Order: sequence, then structure tokens, then C-alpha cells
Amino acid sequence: MKILVTNDDGIDSPGISALAEALREIAEVIVVAPSEEQSAVGHGITMKYPLRVFRYRKNGAFFGYAVEGTPADCVKMGIRNIMGESPDLVISGINHGSNTAINIIYSGTVSAAREAAIMDVSAIAISVTSHDATDFTYAGKVAKMLAQRVTEHGLPRGTLLNVNVPNFPENKIAGILVTKQSKAKWDDIYEKRVDPYGRDYYWLTGKLIEIENELHTDQAAIKNKFVSVTPIHFDLTDHETFEAMKSWNIEKR
Amino acid sequence: MKILVTNDDGIDSPGISALAEALREIAEVIVVAPSEEQSAVGHGITMKYPLRVFRYRKNGAFFGYAVEGTPADCVKMGIRNIMGESPDLVISGINHGSNTAINIIYSGTVSAAREAAIMDVSAIAISVTSHDATDFTYAGKVAKMLAQRVTEHGLPRGTLLNVNVPNFPENKIAGILVTKQSKAKWDDIYEKRVDPYGRDYYWLTGKLIEIENELHTDQAAIKNKFVSVTPIHFDLTDHETFEAMKSWNIEKR
Repeated sequence: MKILVTNDDGIDSPGISALAEALREIAEVIVVAPSEEQSAVGHGITMKYPLRVFRYRKNGAFFGYAVEGTPADCVKMGIRNIMGESPDLVISGINHGSNTAINIIYSGTVSAAREAAIMDVSAIAISVTSHDATDFTYAGKVAKMLAQRVTEHGLPRGTLLNVNVPNFPENKIAGILVTKQSKAKWDDIYEKRVDPYGRDYYWLTGKLIEIENELHTDQAAIKNKFVSVTPIHFDLTDHETFEAMKSWNIEKR
Repeated sequence: MKILVTNDDGIDSPGISALAEALREIAEVIVVAPSEEQSAVGHGITMKYPLRVFRYRKNGAFFGYAVEGTPADCVKMGIRNIMGESPDLVISGINHGSNTAINIIYSGTVSAAREAAIMDVSAIAISVTSHDATDFTYAGKVAKMLAQRVTEHGLPRGTLLNVNVPNFPENKIAGILVTKQSKAKWDDIYEKRVDPYGRDYYWLTGKLIEIENELHTDQAAIKNKFVSVTPIHFDLTDHETFEAMKSWNIEKR
């Protein structure tokens, strides 16, 4: 089995090292990751500038390929140019900070896995729910388990798994749940500051507002110390509204 | 009626001027757009850097607010800080180049409208299907018509319209269709070049591979010179796979 590993925290992040290490027990691992942190880049791809690729060393040994681009760029470049073939699986992470609810849309980690799914490769995005996470042992174990299950059961074309692991040691974890994307969303606040030259600038802050309490949503699962596994896809059509719009009478032929 | 207008081609683009002009016939228009081109940025938001906002003049008169950020940043900033209230509608465009099929995911134009939908504001993304488009008259008319229809019928929470207008004068347009996102996708190619210092770099190119022929998909509609109107949403859960994964037996409680 060949697994392409990427992330959005950058190739020097400890999360990607832990992921590569855990997966090497079951597969040949190829690392292709952004040379710099790419959080909240969404599903950006680089077209205005050319891309460069570098061999990257960690702890004195070759670790993987660093791409001066986005997580989605890394997956395209990794499959098309570096590997020259499709891997059996793409796994993106282990991300610092949760990727639940509406954050899925902003996430570079999830976008990398989604790019793989677009290219018909099974994919998993995995995050630990704290920006201060330092121990990725349990998340690595979850990644390995899910890599095996995905290989065993397969995923429909275009579907990927978005996984969030609470930031606790294994013996404090309540369990594992298959979940839906929750409807929680951000209440944004722009914090205004003034620079030393008297000009205004704004920092984006805010808090996540929870709407549901159903345990089988990503946000509720992690709050209750469960690992959350959400199958997501990129068919964005709102099929109900597609039907309902027939009554709008805007069609003309 | 108040309409917030934004885009991803940048505030100096002719497409956003045409859109603002068409909509001024039916609403008060507030323009908040990126100070620079932001194509293919996906749903990126700016958190690593602060944002700045400038008053922007076009043809000697105040035109709108330029934000040094992404299209999604412009919508957040426009609603939270510049307007301080929700507009009745957000319209993003008029984009140069089609936003159909998988391109919806990469598109800054669509992300701006999606950010509005996340904020519970009805939204429309509108594109003309050629990068060389210069005449936005008909697309402006379509935007105005749809703004009125959306106001009349409403859209479900979280649903937005993604509109693509073929690059032809009105009398060459075949009609208007409500469509689904097609499954067409890119066959990516990285074109390798060598810089004057002997180092490799890569340009992303490729072609769109069409998979379906059903007329009621975005890609088929525009190929047949129809305006395509696709209702899209951001519930990314693959509900079928959510059910199917029960047989995986990965849940633990």
C-alpha cells in the first residue's frame, strides 16, 4: 500500500511527522507538504505563480517533498509529478486545531483530502482539536485504523473522511462516532487596531456558536470526548432547491 | 433593498462595475471587493495577517471599499464593519471565466457568495464564461432579474445561486436553465520550465474532462448557450455514506 501524506501546517510541523511515522507501519509513505503554514487557505490552488519543489530533510534524514504552494497544490503535484501515479490513499494532517462544522470549508487540511477525492483517490483528513496539541500518538493510531478500514470497505467516488480527535490521551477518550457536519458557525468580530503611523487595521476574531445538541454531529462528538468521523463529499448541488425552483418560472428555452 | 457587491477579480475589474451599475436600478449598492485579483483562492480567509480597508475611486468618483484580503474576507468585513448590518442580498461577480463543475470549489467568486449564505444572507455568484469577456450587459440584466426573483421567492438558509452566462450577446443566448453541478473535472498537467539559474519550476495547466451529457448540468447548459442557474449549499455531509458506514463497525462508546 502507498499513502501520500500532506497537511496545511507545513512540512516542518510535528503533526505530519507523527502521521508519517504511524502509517509507515502499514504502508510506503510519501510526504508532499507545503513549505510554509497554509491554515485557512480553503481550497486555493496556485495558478498566478509557478510552483517549486524541494527535497526536505528532518532530523538529518530525507523526510519528503516541500512545495511552495497550498495543500491542494501538494496533492496535485504529488500525484501528477512526484509519484507519477495514484497512491492507494491520501491522508492529510495531523492538523493542530479542530476542523468541524463550517470550518471544513476554510480548512486547508480538508481541502487537500478533497483534492485527492476529486482525483478519485480515497482520502482522510485528520485533526487534533487543540492548537496546543503536542501528543499525536492516539491520533496516529486512529489514522492507521481508518486507513485500514477505508482500504477494506472502500469509499464511494468523491467521498472522503473528515476526522477530529479530542486532545486527550487514549484512556480519556469516550469512543468513536460516525457523524454529520454540524451547523455551528462563527460569530465574527473584527478587532480594530491602529498602527504606529496612525492607520487602522483589523484582526479577525470571533467565537463558534453551536446550534444543535445531537451527539452524531462533529462538534457535539468532540465536545463529549468522542473521535468524530464524518463522510463528506463535493456535490454542492442543493437538490431540494433544484426541484423547488421549478415554480420560479425562470427557465426559458 | 440593499445589495452588497463583491468579486474575486479585484475592485478595478470592469465586471464589478457592470454589476454595480445594473443593480443600482433596483437597489442601494455597497461595493466591498479585494484590492487585488484573488482568482482560485478558494474559500480562504485571512487570519495570519491583519486586514486593511481603503476607500476606492473609479472614474473620479467614490466607487466602494477595497480590502487587502480574499473575497470571503470582503463579505465578512463588509457586513460586520462597513455596513454594520446584513444587506438583503450579496452578489459576487461578474467574474471573467466560467465557474462550473469542480471549479465551484476553487472559485473565489463563489466563496464570497457562500460566505454570505453562511451569514444567513441570500447570495448569488455570477460569471461570464470567457476570460476575454468585455461586454457584461446581458449578465448584468440576468443578475438584476435573479436579484428580484430571490427577493420574491427567498432561498432556504445556507443555499445560494451559482450563475454562469455564456459569452454571447443576448440575441444569441438559447435561454435560461436551472441546473445541477456537473461532474466534469480537470486533467491536470504541470508544465516544467527551467529558470535562468538552472532551477526547475512548474506551471499548472490542464483541460476539463466532461463526463455527463445531461442538459440540466451547469457545464452542458453553457456549452449549449444557456444561462445556467445552480442552487448550491454547504452541507458537505455525504448522508448515504453516513448510513452505509454503520456496517464498518468503527463506532465505540
